[in-house]
Amino acid sequence: MPEFQQIAILGVGLIGGSIGLAAQKRKIAGKVVGIGRSEEKLAKAQRQGCITEGTTQWQAGIRGADLIVVCSPVESIVPLVEQLVPFCRPGTIITDAGSTKQKIVDTLHLSESIRGRKDVYFVGSHPMAGSDKSGSDFATADLFQNRVTIVTPVAETDRTAKATVRKFWESLGSEVHEMNPSEHDAIVAATSHMPHVIAALVAASTPEAMLKFTSTGWADTTRIAAGDIDLWRQILTTNRGHVLQTLANFEKLLAAFRTSLEAGQEEHWIKLLKQGKHHRDIVGS
Amino acid sequence: MPEFQQIAILGVGLIGGSIGLAAQKRKIAGKVVGIGRSEEKLAKAQRQGCITEGTTQWQAGIRGADLIVVCSPVESIVPLVEQLVPFCRPGTIITDAGSTKQKIVDTLHLSESIRGRKDVYFVGSHPMAGSDKSGSDFATADLFQNRVTIVTPVAETDRTAKATVRKFWESLGSEVHEMNPSEHDAIVAATSHMPHVIAALVAASTPEAMLKFTSTGWADTTRIAAGDIDLWRQILTTNRGHVLQTLANFEKLLAAFRTSLEAGQEEHWIKLLKQGKHHRDIVGS
Repeated sequence: MPEFQQIAILGVGLIGGSIGLAAQKRKIAGKVVGIGRSEEKLAKAQRQGCITEGTTQWQAGIRGADLIVVCSPVESIVPLVEQLVPFCRPGTIITDAGSTKQKIVDTLHLSESIRGRKDVYFVGSHPMAGSDKSGSDFATADLFQNRVTIVTPVAETDRTAKATVRKFWESLGSEVHEMNPSEHDAIVAATSHMPHVIAALVAASTPEAMLKFTSTGWADTTRIAAGDIDLWRQILTTNRGHVLQTLANFEKLLAAFRTSLEAGQEEHWIKLLKQGKHHRDIVGS
Repeated sequence: MPEFQQIAILGVGLIGGSIGLAAQKRKIAGKVVGIGRSEEKLAKAQRQGCITEGTTQWQAGIRGADLIVVCSPVESIVPLVEQLVPFCRPGTIITDAGSTKQKIVDTLHLSESIRGRKDVYFVGSHPMAGSDKSGSDFATADLFQNRVTIVTPVAETDRTAKATVRKFWESLGSEVHEMNPSEHDAIVAATSHMPHVIAALVAASTPEAMLKFTSTGWADTTRIAAGDIDLWRQILTTNRGHVLQTLANFEKLLAAFRTSLEAGQEEHWIKLLKQGKHHRDIVGS
């Protein structure tokens, strides 16, 4: 018997579509209902096998769900969950795939709509998988395979719901880590948000007339800069404090590099290159 | 009849090995002689089909060559060429694959050994293809296919030799551009050397304990930081002026981004993200 009778996925793009594919491939869901605003995109996602059915009527879509996964842009997660909760059946677990966690988790735990339903449970999640591409066209059943998912419980989080959400991501192939939302946000600032900003600025600072002389190195370094601007606006806005801190750290390192290259202090700047290579080699391909 | 009776390649690594494979696949050389210091590496490159024969005796290796391609690290190119020239047969053309050009071209054109042989010709080249990997294991016949090669003639460069070198790279599948060495160095500072430094610093500034939480974005952005430190030391040292300039430009952009994010001036930092995406989209995958 599958783990869940019915999973509802709000937002069937790269992440939502991949969750649907993975949940079916691994037989953890009876039905996978996609909820979205575009009939056309839902029909396409259904043809692609991401969902077993699709609807633009969210109330109908969540009716039979025992797990709801909200895969919409970060700023829309809180209002969507607040709207859904009163219509959930008792025992429903809600999680999300948002790239920032503190604002979402803090706001929801203070929310009247959540506090009014003791039998509906929210657990924050962040599957750390993605791409510079978006849309269900790029969804794959293996997107979460061997990737980390961070689950961010707080004092108010129901323990059984948390265990179910952990198991859900593990069933999709993820390695699950648990930490508080603020710790999560500090980590993704350093490992994802700062690199995104830097990649965009490397691309921005390359004069347009020189772009035809770029090679594989430039292409790799700047790849994520092609990502959706509005999604990144939301991510950077909701994690501003941590992002500012990591950018300031990066600026200090860059200034140290530049001044030691200028001063001919080879041992200083070589040491920074070596530290970079050391970290890169730890991560591997 | 092949374009060259015999090509000698000094340094049969990723670039030299790929030149050998491409020259044979495209039948532009009768023989491809690899010259290196390690018998073992040469034997391996020969088994891999990169060269038709190998030798550690450079005098013997260049004896019958009508084209010599120097693929050794940038700092070694000038002393190697100076050493080779007196032993070249009349009409030999020498080119290189160095990532910086001004120091190499300027020094060689002032060199006694070159000036003493009016019948041996040096033309600077830079095939803009590469990888974070090194060694003939990663060589491919298509490395230069649809990639740009920059040829950097100066007033003293022989026109016929220049035309031959252009045709050589075109035969390997490259799109050849011609410019002076200083212009070349300014371009690669922006398109390759600055991105390399930034990638290394992104990796260096990510705390080691957080590396397990990196995802594909971090991996792409930092990929080139895995490159050989000593090769990059040589590149950054020989192109220091231009690299410092591009790093200073980058620092200004980064400071502008950070202060506008801090001040909540969303239109400012969004504009920079959009400029980055615009440039990235022009280049494509």
